[in-house]
Amino acid sequence: MPLALCRVAIDTYRENVAYLHRECDLYRAEGFQALSKVEVRANGQRILATLNVVDDTAIVGHTQLGLSEDAFVLLGVEEGHPVSVSQAEPPVSIPALRRKIAGERLTRKDLREIVHDIAELRYSKIELTAFVVACELGELDREEIFFLSDAMARVGRRLDWHEHPVVDKHCIGGIPGNRTSMLVVPIVAAHGLLCPKTSSRAITSPSGTADTMEVLAKVELPFDELGKLVRTHRGCMAWGGTSELSPADDVLIAVERPLSIDSPGQMVASILSKKVAAGSTHLLLDIPVGPHAKVRSMPEARRLRKLFEFVASRMGLVLDVVITDGSQPIGRGIGPVLEARDVMQVLTNHPDAPMDLRLKSLRLAGRMLEFDPDIRGGDGFGIARDILDSGRALEKMQAIIRAQGEKPFDLEKPELAPHQFEVLAPEAGVVNAIDNLRLARIARLAGAPKARGAGVDLLARIGDRVEQGQPLYRVHAAYRSERSFAHQCSERDSGYGIGQADEINRMNVEF
Amino acid sequence: MPLALCRVAIDTYRENVAYLHRECDLYRAEGFQALSKVEVRANGQRILATLNVVDDTAIVGHTQLGLSEDAFVLLGVEEGHPVSVSQAEPPVSIPALRRKIAGERLTRKDLREIVHDIAELRYSKIELTAFVVACELGELDREEIFFLSDAMARVGRRLDWHEHPVVDKHCIGGIPGNRTSMLVVPIVAAHGLLCPKTSSRAITSPSGTADTMEVLAKVELPFDELGKLVRTHRGCMAWGGTSELSPADDVLIAVERPLSIDSPGQMVASILSKKVAAGSTHLLLDIPVGPHAKVRSMPEARRLRKLFEFVASRMGLVLDVVITDGSQPIGRGIGPVLEARDVMQVLTNHPDAPMDLRLKSLRLAGRMLEFDPDIRGGDGFGIARDILDSGRALEKMQAIIRAQGEKPFDLEKPELAPHQFEVLAPEAGVVNAIDNLRLARIARLAGAPKARGAGVDLLARIGDRVEQGQPLYRVHAAYRSERSFAHQCSERDSGYGIGQADEINRMNVEF
Repeated sequence: MPLALCRVAIDTYRENVAYLHRECDLYRAEGFQALSKVEVRANGQRILATLNVVDDTAIVGHTQLGLSEDAFVLLGVEEGHPVSVSQAEPPVSIPALRRKIAGERLTRKDLREIVHDIAELRYSKIELTAFVVACELGELDREEIFFLSDAMARVGRRLDWHEHPVVDKHCIGGIPGNRTSMLVVPIVAAHGLLCPKTSSRAITSPSGTADTMEVLAKVELPFDELGKLVRTHRGCMAWGGTSELSPADDVLIAVERPLSIDSPGQMVASILSKKVAAGSTHLLLDIPVGPHAKVRSMPEARRLRKLFEFVASRMGLVLDVVITDGSQPIGRGIGPVLEARDVMQVLTNHPDAPMDLRLKSLRLAGRMLEFDPDIRGGDGFGIARDILDSGRALEKMQAIIRAQGEKPFDLEKPELAPHQFEVLAPEAGVVNAIDNLRLARIARLAGAPKARGAGVDLLARIGDRVEQGQPLYRVHAAYRSERSFAHQCSERDSGYGIGQADEINRMNVEF
Repeated sequence: MPLALCRVAIDTYRENVAYLHRECDLYRAEGFQALSKVEVRANGQRILATLNVVDDTAIVGHTQLGLSEDAFVLLGVEEGHPVSVSQAEPPVSIPALRRKIAGERLTRKDLREIVHDIAELRYSKIELTAFVVACELGELDREEIFFLSDAMARVGRRLDWHEHPVVDKHCIGGIPGNRTSMLVVPIVAAHGLLCPKTSSRAITSPSGTADTMEVLAKVELPFDELGKLVRTHRGCMAWGGTSELSPADDVLIAVERPLSIDSPGQMVASILSKKVAAGSTHLLLDIPVGPHAKVRSMPEARRLRKLFEFVASRMGLVLDVVITDGSQPIGRGIGPVLEARDVMQVLTNHPDAPMDLRLKSLRLAGRMLEFDPDIRGGDGFGIARDILDSGRALEKMQAIIRAQGEKPFDLEKPELAPHQFEVLAPEAGVVNAIDNLRLARIARLAGAPKARGAGVDLLARIGDRVEQGQPLYRVHAAYRSERSFAHQCSERDSGYGIGQADEINRMNVEF
């Protein structure tokens, strides 16, 4: 006896959930277990879902089967359509998952099956978490990380730009204000290299490239429009459609984030699978190192570089890794509007432009330009600087902004959040440390990235001499309550260390 | 601005879930993440919950906060009551969980904090799964297993019977029909030992002791009534209130079951924490070994025994382990009514009583009787047999049945499910193997334990000579469709091996 399909408008966040009423005949007859896997069939379509039991007919009636948003869309039939439900065989890759939980090494086939099931939302949150933790603890070796990355790149869409090279850059993250992409992409695209950069929104940081770019232009563009735009302008800074590239990645992130799992294996697979699926042939990877960065020592950074190099090479991706100074934020602003101001100051060669952001962006752009076979090793930096100083990078940026959909932005009067306060130096001395995580937290408490104009504006940097009472940074908050949260947080620990110049512990990095 | 509490009648299965409408001002203002942890406060009470986002005002309105059943009960305020919600600090034990995920050893304090948070439903399904898998892969050492078991026994209620010894028995499971508890408890209680056995329902098996006992008597009794009953009759076979004993165990099982995780560490902690919380001082543990049992070899059984012994001794529990023959089901029936028939046949000294069930029960009861300081080692078996043969065990059973609430049961005409078929020997020979898992699966497909009269009735056992076409077992199904499922399963593989007598591979076990 079929049930009638109904939609249960709960966002189960990349888990297919089916809802049955506890008094439903089928539920009682089949002896289903809560959280067990069921197969839902209609119109020749079939999906797997995790069963939830409901005691309220306002959610599902006795003769209905409810599906969560994700599952409803995946099944693709209308509300009221008859559906049948049965105990499901577990997803085919579950034996492989069990072997990983038992500490065994997985084969290429195992990881393909697992990734395929994950991308099709056949895993429950419990199974997903088990996979993520088993990979973390069972220590994927580098071959397994390659198998995983390769499998992730193969499910979902895969772009082919029909030219060579297709370049991209990526930073492993953790450094507030580090908006180099918004300078590197215009420079590289102005030179003529194809650079289809898909940007992400902030997950735990005060702003992602997509959030900052959104101050200047629309970023949510349909997949196909994005492709046309990139072909015309040689680059873009947009968000959208990325979930069709390496879709398993987004599903895994949904459980990695709440657990703060960010292991080397997961990071490599996540980054490289997206880049390969996006059709990139060359990638410049930025690994910042610093006492409050994701990577805290040079030996750790080198190990991570080797791992990226091994997997990229197996995937046929040309990879250049730079290890950079992650001891403090890059640029002055932390938060969408403040960062957009920094970027536009650099692009317009404004006298107040933050030099560290300019310099780092030029160095990265220079290395990327050298992916062009016609550019001699060592010449990239000079060419990048010429493109920036001559205004060609600004011109390219303006073209991309117009193509994505321009938004009003006044560089001289950016719209900052109204509730401000300054954090002052408690004593005279030299700034010898800035805690990236602390400042990111203060910027988030102030309302970033949700409130575009909220964030932190740095007024002193490592190595600067400050007098007692001199402002170290200014916080912009959208609401009085957020100002007070941010203020309390900065009172407990401002994130700044002040001492003597010789206490500065600089990393010996490339740049 | 507080929201109004509403109850969302979804059984989230031991996870506190809070529901906010996507258009709720608070959701938008706070920048909550899907699946993030929130703290819900009302009336001085506070609980942690995982946030789900809803797009339907029939589930929660724009000015409401919904709580899942578990969470609603835990918070303990009425619908409509104002509640406030904020981003929650993660549970205090999360740093310890992270360390376990990173492969570190946990301290006693770490495990106390983790178990406390789990029992209070402060963990999301993702965090719970991470803990379970990390323990599996990170290999809890035996000290950590003791810390875990001890912590689990300490949260929730803990019974004190104010006498000594308080005895119990437990089987690690996996052997269909193995209903020895329903014989051992009346024998031991008839002798006068206090035996407060809490029984469980089937999780993945065709019947648990509580399901079989429920054919004869009510088993769902309030916690306090159970205590009185045990004091009067020296024993019981009931289910109920056990979730108040070692409550973290039930929460962990909710994620272990879908992953089929049944590691030695989890098994030891689960069993011993419940027994200690139930006030037992002495435990007899049955570890069946066989090619299709949970434990498949003697070395494995011995390792498991040592682990149980180590942890029990650290917890102050006297433990006697017996390793028994698990090469085939015990008794004839598999399924609630069929097993109840077997048990009552043994208790009434019926000529058809299955001798293997009688013998195993007497041996177990004998070993338990020897927990009595007044009984000489080796005398237990004879005393148990006297109690059974004299009818004193039956008398005790009847008293317990009446005390729990008698149900009508006709031993000569048990109510078996109507749709039957027999599985026949495909050739002449000697039965040399019976696959426990296969027969359990067939019994479940036939409808057990939901359909009380469904299951499998064994007509031949290992060592029996059979002719071609002679029935090996009979299947009773509640519905025609279930008969057909069970039939298909038995056609693919009957679960019986037939060959020569010398191919029988007997385990060299205690009994």
